[in-house]
Amino acid sequence: MNDKKSLTRRQLLAGLAAGGASLAIGKSSPASPAPPDTEPFWGAHQGGIATPQQKHTYFAAFDLSAEKRDEVVTLLRDWTAAAARLTQGQLARPLGQSFDEPPADGGGALGLSPGRLTITFGFGPGLFEHNGEDRYGLKSRRPEALVDLPRFSGDQLVEAHTGGDLSVQACADDPQVAFHAVRELVRIAYGAVEVRWAQTGFVSNHSPRETPRNLMGFKDGTSNPSPSKPREMDKFVWVGGDGPAWMRGGSYLVVRRIRIALEHWDRMTLGFQEQTIGRHKYSGAPIGGKAEFEPVNLDATDKDGNALIAENSHVRLSIAASNDGARILRRAYSYNDGVSFTAERWPPWRQGMEYDAGLLFMAYQSDPRTGFIKIFDKMSKLDQMNQFVTHVGSGIFACPGGVVMGEFVGQGLFG
Amino acid sequence: MNDKKSLTRRQLLAGLAAGGASLAIGKSSPASPAPPDTEPFWGAHQGGIATPQQKHTYFAAFDLSAEKRDEVVTLLRDWTAAAARLTQGQLARPLGQSFDEPPADGGGALGLSPGRLTITFGFGPGLFEHNGEDRYGLKSRRPEALVDLPRFSGDQLVEAHTGGDLSVQACADDPQVAFHAVRELVRIAYGAVEVRWAQTGFVSNHSPRETPRNLMGFKDGTSNPSPSKPREMDKFVWVGGDGPAWMRGGSYLVVRRIRIALEHWDRMTLGFQEQTIGRHKYSGAPIGGKAEFEPVNLDATDKDGNALIAENSHVRLSIAASNDGARILRRAYSYNDGVSFTAERWPPWRQGMEYDAGLLFMAYQSDPRTGFIKIFDKMSKLDQMNQFVTHVGSGIFACPGGVVMGEFVGQGLFG
Repeated sequence: MNDKKSLTRRQLLAGLAAGGASLAIGKSSPASPAPPDTEPFWGAHQGGIATPQQKHTYFAAFDLSAEKRDEVVTLLRDWTAAAARLTQGQLARPLGQSFDEPPADGGGALGLSPGRLTITFGFGPGLFEHNGEDRYGLKSRRPEALVDLPRFSGDQLVEAHTGGDLSVQACADDPQVAFHAVRELVRIAYGAVEVRWAQTGFVSNHSPRETPRNLMGFKDGTSNPSPSKPREMDKFVWVGGDGPAWMRGGSYLVVRRIRIALEHWDRMTLGFQEQTIGRHKYSGAPIGGKAEFEPVNLDATDKDGNALIAENSHVRLSIAASNDGARILRRAYSYNDGVSFTAERWPPWRQGMEYDAGLLFMAYQSDPRTGFIKIFDKMSKLDQMNQFVTHVGSGIFACPGGVVMGEFVGQGLFG
Repeated sequence: MNDKKSLTRRQLLAGLAAGGASLAIGKSSPASPAPPDTEPFWGAHQGGIATPQQKHTYFAAFDLSAEKRDEVVTLLRDWTAAAARLTQGQLARPLGQSFDEPPADGGGALGLSPGRLTITFGFGPGLFEHNGEDRYGLKSRRPEALVDLPRFSGDQLVEAHTGGDLSVQACADDPQVAFHAVRELVRIAYGAVEVRWAQTGFVSNHSPRETPRNLMGFKDGTSNPSPSKPREMDKFVWVGGDGPAWMRGGSYLVVRRIRIALEHWDRMTLGFQEQTIGRHKYSGAPIGGKAEFEPVNLDATDKDGNALIAENSHVRLSIAASNDGARILRRAYSYNDGVSFTAERWPPWRQGMEYDAGLLFMAYQSDPRTGFIKIFDKMSKLDQMNQFVTHVGSGIFACPGGVVMGEFVGQGLFG
């Protein structure tokens, strides 16, 4: 550990400042502990699932162009090594290059904090079977839980935001650090993968004690399983003994790119907005209640006997009590891609530029069949919020368990 | 100042927590000083120009659909009032509503820090003349400096990212705060404007003492005029006595959405990247130099007599010494809109998904004719960097001087 490989990006720059503008780095830098603002890479679970949510994400889904299983193994080995380095604030690849080579690391994160970077890898259905073909001899090893998502009521999925053989979710408190990480992984994978789709996302600079508000202005994530409660996580999020060994400690990711008709939402009355969600906007309390985290009483009625929390409200339909106890770990980001042309589907049938913004919904669960699919099937038909949201992108990925140092992510699948 | 209008967003939530979940706000809140992390709204200059750069921007260009001059005046008056409130961490409009109205403020920034929000308004050519028509009686008052940008060599402008009668640039350290501000302004302007195009942007979490790196991995902004040197700012950035009175203390904004072929850039050798820029990648020093801020010596040669800083390098072409002393205040953000389909124009003529990411170039100057146009005309023809960058969007806006409390932005234009 006394060579260039252990240098953090900040140390590299300090060395440059001391030694001049060239790439001459002293060879005797002492081994360094992980800098602050790092999340562990090796462990029982991949980072980026139970990790307290970072402020930014860059999510990318890839098509595999590798022809052979060995190439996929090499790719995952290289990605694991690079991810282990990047998450610890190091360069994607060790320096030691000449000016006649592309940079070992593009440099976009030089001098920056690691920003609690995590990199979460996922395997899509196409890794196991592609157009009916068993490219890599993995078809028989596809987990039962890695189903193809059904078509949900109202789905308006577009190819440009859907699917993928592999997924990489980089999360960091700095958008440049998150993008840099994925870009370096893409460089390393040149020839083996093609980016299929990608999406940036953000959450606000809220206090860590508070539930962030999404672009509808409501708190989002109030009833999540708690990473501080291992039993909840084991039940709802982590794959246990009933899945393949390489998925133990892993989780299934469902991604949905959900465009929100913000212009319409913004013109609804406060009362209608709150009825739609089933919560008060400013406090986050269930309708009729006072505090965000008080239990949702689905039986409460007004003086005329009407349900306080409407039958078609988002909260009633999504809550565990309405879904045989099903829960998922939402770890969603807002997205904001400016505006694009939209022809509206309701009066006054306006056509024009509208926000291409909404929610990059990401949910982790131990089994999508009893998680997202179970919960969303009903919501997609009944949720009053569907007037304002359109699911335009989608993906499902098996995110293997954590990686032991010396191995690569998902290694057990290839054993 | 003892009413709801002076409540900050944090105070509103504190009031809600104390008083229950309704909108009942105590009427006797004391007047409050501006919360931390605020930038002034009223003053000699609009915020967001000399303001130390915030980490995020949401830039929006608008088409005016207002038919009458009075409607434009009302719009600017309402926008000014809302911007003054939003930048100080208050709601876009005072509360005092019923549940039967749309919320006075969408709530997306509730509980968040103001994040040093600034809102910078600009007037595009279309405010003065639209399809040859003098809609608002302002044609004769169009500043000479507000030229239509010429077509530059290599321009690939698309309608969806170009033009605009009005511009609003919201900058904040929180992307949700910046977007919230523009969205509230759009709500207020319903019927008077249509969003024409919009773009998010970010810079990294670099130390305030450091020049941020753009997505090419190089430091960007090293030779900017310094806001701490009033003489430089007066000469290069602020409009002085030779413009119309309402532009005094204002500045002209040129926006360019510059897509960067990052995949190609990433495969270039380090030496070629540095030659293209004319600076060392890691240190930021001019080629052959040691420190970022040392003077650029355009006459330096290698042992064979070749210029160390190549004739077609970005630094040589852009530097004041090569442009009769011209300088502009660059206040650029990176942008990242995922990937989109691209057919490459060079070998190996690959077609596929490529990053739709690059630079939201924004530059302020006292006169675009002696600023951006002067500098970029030559660069657009000669800069080696043009192999990697494509200008796909563009706009030019006259940003009026700062606003005196009680007036509205650009008021002198309508007097």
